[in-house]
Amino acid sequence: MSTQVRAGIFGASGYTGAELVRLLSGHPHVALNVLTADRKAGQSMAEVFPQFTGRDLPKLVKIDEADVGALDVLFTALPHGTTQLVIADAFKKNPKLKIVDLSADFRLTDPDAYATWYGHEHQALDLQSEAVFGLTEHYREDVKKTRLLANPGCHSTTSILPVVPLLRTNVIDPEHIVIDSKTGMSGAGRAANEAMLFSEVSEGIHAYGVGRHRHTSELDQEYSKAAGHEVLAMFTPVLAPMNRGIYATVYVHTRGSSSPADLHAVLSEAYKGEPFVQVLPFGQVPQSRHVRGSNNCQLGVVADRVHNRAIVISTTDNLVKGASGQAVQNFNVMFGFDETTALTGPALFP
Amino acid sequence: MSTQVRAGIFGASGYTGAELVRLLSGHPHVALNVLTADRKAGQSMAEVFPQFTGRDLPKLVKIDEADVGALDVLFTALPHGTTQLVIADAFKKNPKLKIVDLSADFRLTDPDAYATWYGHEHQALDLQSEAVFGLTEHYREDVKKTRLLANPGCHSTTSILPVVPLLRTNVIDPEHIVIDSKTGMSGAGRAANEAMLFSEVSEGIHAYGVGRHRHTSELDQEYSKAAGHEVLAMFTPVLAPMNRGIYATVYVHTRGSSSPADLHAVLSEAYKGEPFVQVLPFGQVPQSRHVRGSNNCQLGVVADRVHNRAIVISTTDNLVKGASGQAVQNFNVMFGFDETTALTGPALFP
Amino acid sequence: MSTQVRAGIFGASGYTGAELVRLLSGHPHVALNVLTADRKAGQSMAEVFPQFTGRDLPKLVKIDEADVGALDVLFTALPHGTTQLVIADAFKKNPKLKIVDLSADFRLTDPDAYATWYGHEHQALDLQSEAVFGLTEHYREDVKKTRLLANPGCHSTTSILPVVPLLRTNVIDPEHIVIDSKTGMSGAGRAANEAMLFSEVSEGIHAYGVGRHRHTSELDQEYSKAAGHEVLAMFTPVLAPMNRGIYATVYVHTRGSSSPADLHAVLSEAYKGEPFVQVLPFGQVPQSRHVRGSNNCQLGVVADRVHNRAIVISTTDNLVKGASGQAVQNFNVMFGFDETTALTGPALFP
Amino acid sequence: MSTQVRAGIFGASGYTGAELVRLLSGHPHVALNVLTADRKAGQSMAEVFPQFTGRDLPKLVKIDEADVGALDVLFTALPHGTTQLVIADAFKKNPKLKIVDLSADFRLTDPDAYATWYGHEHQALDLQSEAVFGLTEHYREDVKKTRLLANPGCHSTTSILPVVPLLRTNVIDPEHIVIDSKTGMSGAGRAANEAMLFSEVSEGIHAYGVGRHRHTSELDQEYSKAAGHEVLAMFTPVLAPMNRGIYATVYVHTRGSSSPADLHAVLSEAYKGEPFVQVLPFGQVPQSRHVRGSNNCQLGVVADRVHNRAIVISTTDNLVKGASGQAVQNFNVMFGFDETTALTGPALFP
Repeated sequence: MSTQVRAGIFGASGYTGAELVRLLSGHPHVALNVLTADRKAGQSMAEVFPQFTGRDLPKLVKIDEADVGALDVLFTALPHGTTQLVIADAFKKNPKLKIVDLSADFRLTDPDAYATWYGHEHQALDLQSEAVFGLTEHYREDVKKTRLLANPGCHSTTSILPVVPLLRTNVIDPEHIVIDSKTGMSGAGRAANEAMLFSEVSEGIHAYGVGRHRHTSELDQEYSKAAGHEVLAMFTPVLAPMNRGIYATVYVHTRGSSSPADLHAVLSEAYKGEPFVQVLPFGQVPQSRHVRGSNNCQLGVVADRVHNRAIVISTTDNLVKGASGQAVQNFNVMFGFDETTALTGPALFP
Repeated sequence: MSTQVRAGIFGASGYTGAELVRLLSGHPHVALNVLTADRKAGQSMAEVFPQFTGRDLPKLVKIDEADVGALDVLFTALPHGTTQLVIADAFKKNPKLKIVDLSADFRLTDPDAYATWYGHEHQALDLQSEAVFGLTEHYREDVKKTRLLANPGCHSTTSILPVVPLLRTNVIDPEHIVIDSKTGMSGAGRAANEAMLFSEVSEGIHAYGVGRHRHTSELDQEYSKAAGHEVLAMFTPVLAPMNRGIYATVYVHTRGSSSPADLHAVLSEAYKGEPFVQVLPFGQVPQSRHVRGSNNCQLGVVADRVHNRAIVISTTDNLVKGASGQAVQNFNVMFGFDETTALTGPALFP
Repeated sequence: MSTQVRAGIFGASGYTGAELVRLLSGHPHVALNVLTADRKAGQSMAEVFPQFTGRDLPKLVKIDEADVGALDVLFTALPHGTTQLVIADAFKKNPKLKIVDLSADFRLTDPDAYATWYGHEHQALDLQSEAVFGLTEHYREDVKKTRLLANPGCHSTTSILPVVPLLRTNVIDPEHIVIDSKTGMSGAGRAANEAMLFSEVSEGIHAYGVGRHRHTSELDQEYSKAAGHEVLAMFTPVLAPMNRGIYATVYVHTRGSSSPADLHAVLSEAYKGEPFVQVLPFGQVPQSRHVRGSNNCQLGVVADRVHNRAIVISTTDNLVKGASGQAVQNFNVMFGFDETTALTGPALFP
Repeated sequence: MSTQVRAGIFGASGYTGAELVRLLSGHPHVALNVLTADRKAGQSMAEVFPQFTGRDLPKLVKIDEADVGALDVLFTALPHGTTQLVIADAFKKNPKLKIVDLSADFRLTDPDAYATWYGHEHQALDLQSEAVFGLTEHYREDVKKTRLLANPGCHSTTSILPVVPLLRTNVIDPEHIVIDSKTGMSGAGRAANEAMLFSEVSEGIHAYGVGRHRHTSELDQEYSKAAGHEVLAMFTPVLAPMNRGIYATVYVHTRGSSSPADLHAVLSEAYKGEPFVQVLPFGQVPQSRHVRGSNNCQLGVVADRVHNRAIVISTTDNLVKGASGQAVQNFNVMFGFDETTALTGPALFP
């Protein structure tokens, strides 16, 4: 069809790549023309991901073999650090291209913050300045106009959505925010890795990146912006024995005369009409399985037994709203499609 | 929209009921007007299954409160035994109704077989004679015409698809068919049950219903019909620690000069063009996770080290192709819609 | 053997009961003479828990049928609320009996606290005053002398061990303690319960009892005692898809000039020589699977990126150090055996 | 203690190595003097397996650094293929050494069978002729005398125990034995491997090595020996999402007038008095979780609905009776200790 958007995915053999293929294969306005993989170039998607057996998909090629000039949109699902060079090169070849980047390379506005958290200077600072942080619900107008979309991290998406409205409205104490963010295993990617073997991680739980996880930098950026001054929350990611899901328990102190119910009212108001954020009734506790496979974020607010404290809970599917689903959502906004196109499927439960 | 089919689900608070809601909520020609639940009547679907929060769905009512006369199609996802009476009553109230029954009540053609396997006489024999066994790929023409569709069981769907073409073409020995059929936990339903607690069934595996599982009767019926004489396969279901998936390992002896590759050729031919059955390349082993959440059945044929023996493997999602997905597939055929409507989503993996 | 302690278990058909049998069957000085079960009376342990097939164990009887007079020690693994009456009755029949109670009935010293958290007046206040809170490492001398041992809860054991030494030494701010405590499913017991079905809780995670979990009262009691004034931490339990394990992430602010390394030093000193508490090297993150099946508690201290904040992590097996293992540890102390008898097995990993 | 057996483990950083350490650390007559690891030499066991934190264990060294001359027994838990050379070298350095080999290198008596299944000539044929296949229950007298013990595979242990007595007594048809053998993930070892990542293998099931798994050769050897002529069973291993456990469903046809109950009687008689093999009551179905962590094998026999067919089920823990537990059992026999020393722990369930 002539009105199809010609799309490519760089890094289609990883989990976020496969999830993009899953979602985009149901998109009526997308033609998936290019799929790249590094070590698996030459194979078909069905060989790499047998769930696509029988689907009409292009063969996996190396990035060098991809004709970027023939694309309208490029999704990059590559490791951070190298992605910035790949993107710079793609824009050089095709300046009209729009790019949705699922890596962390363009999420931080401040070059110093980038250098601090990633350990090296950014290699494409000019591009960084035009990138938009694609938390769609908060930056919709910017998303519409950009050609370089920095898709937020899974932990950060899940923890920004519940907290930023509370900081903006000044109903919580920015000095005492604690976030314990449980995640499924698929966020660790498909690379062979002793620490992610089934026998290593099933039937048990553990924290990782304690005190220094890189997604923290995205929280710092967005929380500080919302509060109007520096906010440095405590944030710990925890690996849980499940494939998908982010589950953030956020501990807050209310401010002034605000009550936990006020926090719930703020969030309900902030996300009224949003198709992908559901604020559950006050006191109801979300479960990660109820967003599994969907682009939804479910939020809950529960009062603590001490009157000025509350527990705010947020859950997403790390591969959907935390990655590929939000990428498609941003793509829809960038190209003027209905924002929910290809994203309306309810969660898969059980 | 005037062209919407008015649909009801009896038993919407169980897992197959919820799966029907999930699938039908993406169906462009269905209006879900009635949802019943027994103990949970009065609640909303979102209370019973929070993944539907924000969806526009009718409240759960008791069966007595449902206006069957205002429905075009009724999906019954109720326990076997009582379903036959519910269906008889529904047809009395609305003879033009079409019913897709997910229980076991109308799957067996032979009243004696029913009495033997279910321990009591059938209560609606007149209806049983007009019921069609809805393994869509094999009974499509009958499905088109019936008003009472008996949706096959999950184990039986998974084990009939790979074996019946081999019996029809006489390439395997009907005396020595062994089926070891692993299943996920969701097939056991949502009723509180000590034996299905997480702590009872995770991190372990065990057979159940050994030597006498009721789905065996469906295999007997369809295998015997395909072979032209009585075939009584050995069949053992095994409970595996996962939510979804049926995985049948079928052990066969080839017949005459047939080779394992011939078996593969027979299956490839039998399912050529079928949208939901994928025969993998000869020697490739299916995995249940590659059909998870989809209406697909993936088949594989592998040669044993002894030349006249083969292992045929079949896998489905027990809640989709093994239940609600096939029910929607049959519904599509019964109402003249494209058979794949609302069923094109690829599997969710990882 | 004449020197054997004659032991009984009330509630042997539950998970903590079975775990007591597992541990005590390896104890050289214990004769397991009485096992009770309610609904399962009349069955053998091997019928109820086939892992005991071939073991020489008494048949399950009802509590009424148990000869309490012929016991030296009684382990009660019964639901809270009714246990207090059972224990009062047992002491009436045999005042020399020693009892290790795994329920919550005698853990709270303050009758008002009990009434508040459990919703009714305590029925055996005289006994409560002689009960000892059996966190062995902290109350060893009291444990030696008591005849009524209140075995602490699994969440409380796991969260008291890391925090109490920090409060006693005044190195953390008691106003800002946040505890996110992940638990496996076995803590929910063996009663049939829709919410604990495999399909309900696998492949996902969720908090429960948010803001009001009863184990919080044990934290309040012990934290306040350690600090010398009321301490009310924020505490949220989270259900993770695994059988065993408690994993508490404790967020603290250091006080005065104390650093995270000082916290580590305090804990190392506090548990020096303790056989069941291992303080990992500073910065090392514990994993619940490394204590699975053992009576160990592993502790870790990690510095946050902000200098005066730290994350303290504590993990136990909820059925061992969190219940039956600590019960045996207390029993050993009460009867003068080596404290580690029958408890030296390393964790089962993988 | 002067009467301690001085023991070494080559390959202590793998799962079977760690399991040997777990079991032997409870053995009153063993001094663990040498632990080797390849890539992890220089680290402590506690660094590699934190469950051993606080245990007094030798540092991991390279094999070259190990003083084989100072050992009485050596457990080799190394990859097959290279083990035979390591063992030949060890015997050269210390001919009085006794070796328990957990690799596959010395399990096959027939050099041709070895070459066929492993793809190269055996490198230590002289040693192979003195090796004893260490299925303890069947070769106890040979085990007592040997210095080279070939510990059987996990699948083979589990499938030899139930079938060999039936073949010896001629009660089943040797031409129609089908074995579907489910296994947990830990059998795949600790090497980084994309196919064994949590996200690849959780929430799903699949067969592997179909028609050609190497453990089949051990079945061929032992079944043929028991029957007195060549027996080639159908055998398929299936990977299930759990850490531990082998669960073999064995489909057999009875012979002559033998009934399924006769099969049960044969097995009961064959394993009467055996401490580690429990034949459950006729008709009772074993579960892998009931042997988890123990050295037990539980067997069940169930009649099929067709009178001359039966399903025999066998389950073990692949790391215990299927590997390290049986290795310790064999060690006990070789050194004249009570066969159950250090192996009496019941299964860990839940």
